[in-house]
Amino acid sequence: MTAATISRYAVPGLADLPEDIRARILEVQEKAGFVPNVFLALARRPDEFRAFFAYHDALMLRDSGLSKAEREMIVVAVAGANDCLYCFVAHGAILRVYAKNPFVADQVGVNYRKADITPRQRAMLAFALKVADRSSEIDDDDYAALHAHGFTEEDIWDIGNITAFFCLSNRMANLIGLMPNDEFYLLGRVPKQR
Amino acid sequence: MTAATISRYAVPGLADLPEDIRARILEVQEKAGFVPNVFLALARRPDEFRAFFAYHDALMLRDSGLSKAEREMIVVAVAGANDCLYCFVAHGAILRVYAKNPFVADQVGVNYRKADITPRQRAMLAFALKVADRSSEIDDDDYAALHAHGFTEEDIWDIGNITAFFCLSNRMANLIGLMPNDEFYLLGRVPKQR
Amino acid sequence: MTAATISRYAVPGLADLPEDIRARILEVQEKAGFVPNVFLALARRPDEFRAFFAYHDALMLRDSGLSKAEREMIVVAVAGANDCLYCFVAHGAILRVYAKNPFVADQVGVNYRKADITPRQRAMLAFALKVADRSSEIDDDDYAALHAHGFTEEDIWDIGNITAFFCLSNRMANLIGLMPNDEFYLLGRVPKQR
Amino acid sequence: MTAATISRYAVPGLADLPEDIRARILEVQEKAGFVPNVFLALARRPDEFRAFFAYHDALMLRDSGLSKAEREMIVVAVAGANDCLYCFVAHGAILRVYAKNPFVADQVGVNYRKADITPRQRAMLAFALKVADRSSEIDDDDYAALHAHGFTEEDIWDIGNITAFFCLSNRMANLIGLMPNDEFYLLGRVPKQR
Amino acid sequence: MTAATISRYAVPGLADLPEDIRARILEVQEKAGFVPNVFLALARRPDEFRAFFAYHDALMLRDSGLSKAEREMIVVAVAGANDCLYCFVAHGAILRVYAKNPFVADQVGVNYRKADITPRQRAMLAFALKVADRSSEIDDDDYAALHAHGFTEEDIWDIGNITAFFCLSNRMANLIGLMPNDEFYLLGRVPKQR
Amino acid sequence: MTAATISRYAVPGLADLPEDIRARILEVQEKAGFVPNVFLALARRPDEFRAFFAYHDALMLRDSGLSKAEREMIVVAVAGANDCLYCFVAHGAILRVYAKNPFVADQVGVNYRKADITPRQRAMLAFALKVADRSSEIDDDDYAALHAHGFTEEDIWDIGNITAFFCLSNRMANLIGLMPNDEFYLLGRVPKQR
Repeated sequence: MTAATISRYAVPGLADLPEDIRARILEVQEKAGFVPNVFLALARRPDEFRAFFAYHDALMLRDSGLSKAEREMIVVAVAGANDCLYCFVAHGAILRVYAKNPFVADQVGVNYRKADITPRQRAMLAFALKVADRSSEIDDDDYAALHAHGFTEEDIWDIGNITAFFCLSNRMANLIGLMPNDEFYLLGRVPKQR
Repeated sequence: MTAATISRYAVPGLADLPEDIRARILEVQEKAGFVPNVFLALARRPDEFRAFFAYHDALMLRDSGLSKAEREMIVVAVAGANDCLYCFVAHGAILRVYAKNPFVADQVGVNYRKADITPRQRAMLAFALKVADRSSEIDDDDYAALHAHGFTEEDIWDIGNITAFFCLSNRMANLIGLMPNDEFYLLGRVPKQR
Repeated sequence: MTAATISRYAVPGLADLPEDIRARILEVQEKAGFVPNVFLALARRPDEFRAFFAYHDALMLRDSGLSKAEREMIVVAVAGANDCLYCFVAHGAILRVYAKNPFVADQVGVNYRKADITPRQRAMLAFALKVADRSSEIDDDDYAALHAHGFTEEDIWDIGNITAFFCLSNRMANLIGLMPNDEFYLLGRVPKQR
Repeated sequence: MTAATISRYAVPGLADLPEDIRARILEVQEKAGFVPNVFLALARRPDEFRAFFAYHDALMLRDSGLSKAEREMIVVAVAGANDCLYCFVAHGAILRVYAKNPFVADQVGVNYRKADITPRQRAMLAFALKVADRSSEIDDDDYAALHAHGFTEEDIWDIGNITAFFCLSNRMANLIGLMPNDEFYLLGRVPKQR
Repeated sequence: MTAATISRYAVPGLADLPEDIRARILEVQEKAGFVPNVFLALARRPDEFRAFFAYHDALMLRDSGLSKAEREMIVVAVAGANDCLYCFVAHGAILRVYAKNPFVADQVGVNYRKADITPRQRAMLAFALKVADRSSEIDDDDYAALHAHGFTEEDIWDIGNITAFFCLSNRMANLIGLMPNDEFYLLGRVPKQR
Repeated sequence: MTAATISRYAVPGLADLPEDIRARILEVQEKAGFVPNVFLALARRPDEFRAFFAYHDALMLRDSGLSKAEREMIVVAVAGANDCLYCFVAHGAILRVYAKNPFVADQVGVNYRKADITPRQRAMLAFALKVADRSSEIDDDDYAALHAHGFTEEDIWDIGNITAFFCLSNRMANLIGLMPNDEFYLLGRVPKQR
């Protein structure tokens, strides 16, 4: 794989990166077995890289009323709404792994209404897509609909902020033509991989 | 798998079907190793079933300036535009098999502009999506853009009619909540399957 | 009338057509007094012609909870939504004849909400337009709204499939620039013609 | 015909109207053979009635580089874009009469791109629909495209202001549920009437 | 300020205008301290000028269940929906003055749902924007929603016609590139000016 | 001002905040004379606060081919596209101050095409709004259009990432109903304040 297949913008070599960024990249490589392209593509601007992943971690790693699989459902549904290939494929893989379900990512990414998920999750995704597409129309009724499914005000902040963050992320990926690693397409689809 | 997971409408038993329809279903089962759900879901209305598959075959099996993989690219891109889970997943599998490419279906279904395909194929899909979304705006310039890539008038009819047919198909699948068979999600993704 | 006024694509002579297609065309000419252009325009591809009209007949001639006028209302409303001149004018004529009403076609084609039709018919057309424009959002509530007006599950299949079929048909007509016969514009408007 | 079939709002009797408004209505009745419903529906607010028809006359009766038929083409195309039944039907009739053409109104109202009109008229209608749908995006290029067809700056003002006025008119008709007179549906369709 | 900064079209000198139009312009100058550009830009077509302002006055000066500030709220919200710079800024100023509130115009122009206004006013603006954006979908339920807030049928006519008139006005301003006077940007924002 | 006027979510007291966040807030208060509400509203989640402002600073304070005023133009145009009251008003103020121009913020926020800015800036904002609204359609032609105005690849990354970041920010503000401080509405409008 060459830089050209990752992004419109040149990708720096690991040796040229600040120590903290190189460490972060080596850590994810250790864990995943490969370096997801988003790390390489964003590393050319260290301050933005640091802020991006700090934001990501603050939302995706925090204790939350949403499970990690539910958070990834939001990411995949939003990627579908924004026609973002990178997040559809890469986070689709993560969702399959977290949910131990080889089907849910395609279902949620193409049309969450037909997905084999709970009514609570469907309400969560309806709200996320409203934040993605028509956030200025969010009102008390939208909050009430989520409360009816047991979501707290903090959960709703989580849904909204994860959606907002990936609206940023999807736009950056589309801007630079970020391509998913080959590995993501298959990950979590074959039983033994789950 | 039960009828409930296939469609909103009850699915007939094979024994209850007219002979020609049962034969068609057994033939596809023989070839694919399973019966794609669209056959079971539509069989309850034999005349519509026959017309649907006659139309499908007339377009997808005919000699054409479009390869079979290119025709499936159109189907998958249109399924993405129409948020049709069944066709996105089922024809995504067929596309992977025909193209011997485990990545192209997700790429074309989410955003054909970022797909690793030829400029000619990109022009073909741009036209297909215009037929799907804004057919009343099709004019001579659209034809000229395709001629510039070597497409003939007959090829353009093929692109347009395949698109139109799957606009029908996507709406029926969405209407009845047609679910893809589990097999389709993985098909064509693993090297030895190619 | 010359081929140029019918469609972008050359129209075959009757003598050059397969026997079954020529017979079908002569039959409709006998009944209507002229050959609707859609028959001539599609005849150049016999297999697609046969499938198209088999599908049409399966939906429009079958026993149904929808009257023939109601089925044509769907066609005209969908043609309006898709800006399809041919179906707006040709099926507008058929609707006027079936409904024995010189006003209903323009009303339904431009804005069914203002049409002088029953609340049941308005609900039917609201559903049809949702299938035409946003089929991925169809859910149980849409079915329930139709049940409240007495529509059965089979009736809803009919509404949906007629809509889906004319979404195909409208796209083909727009693709090839199919023009309505002059006769259709006036048909069913003058009392003695009804 | 009763008030209920004209508009949501009660229609005043002729005897109750100010003299100038009654005179205007009797004049149009004399000329057309009936009173178009828009006159009756708006008469209940005399000041608005006077301003509405003064505006109408200033645009539609003035000397202009646009023929009267061309101005009515704009009205009908805009009515189609705004799904305004009254203007589609009533001005469709006026267009047929002015253009001495029984087909042009339906063509222009459903899809001006397929209408049997001149390229100059097609450019005029493309501009009108941009003013109707996306006026904030009008720029020098749009003016230049019309100049290339020989339209002057004054002609462009006419196209734009006629469009703007009927965007008002269409909204009022939709607001009050204004229904076209029966007479308009047939007017200009039968040769001897032309 | 030169003509070029007012509008695409040349602005006539006061001396060249018909007496009634010059008088109207001098009157508004006397009252406001400057001549709002819309008067100068439209004066080049006296008949249209007279009809435009007669329509404006009939709606904005009449006795109504809507206060003058409420009517200006409608104008500003509609200007926001139509991306009309002139009306957003000029009527924003008038709204601030009438409402004696330096904040309300920006709030209503950008997103009325977040504005610090009454629920009744929010319902009024929701209706206005439906008339502006989707008037063909107005139905009894929309009327009922306004009745629930105490609006009469006449009030609803006022809301609808003010909206419709400024849909005309916004399109004209966008067509000719009408620029707001510098004075409007600040008017009503500084306490002593209120 | 109470918490209720700032956001849907309770705002923490300064004393309850982590030291670094309190310091940042006191610093901005020192500089601006008041605490912009976004600081108070986001402080309740320290990790997200830190990442948000680190991202903001990385983009808005870095050396760039875009001036600070140009970067704020992007923010205001994007806020207009997303109907985000907070950013429209707060960053409108910052833009007025940076550009030393009391008019440009309203112009750019309502319709950048009519704004009194350079062609280069107009191209920049056209690109920003494409990233905001249709990022999946960004392609080489969009890059080429900016290069023609002298923007480098790094400048384009800046435009795109600022847009993407404020697409996040606008959605959060809409989600929590974030209200602008009163001070922002007037800032930069009165000459002596500039």
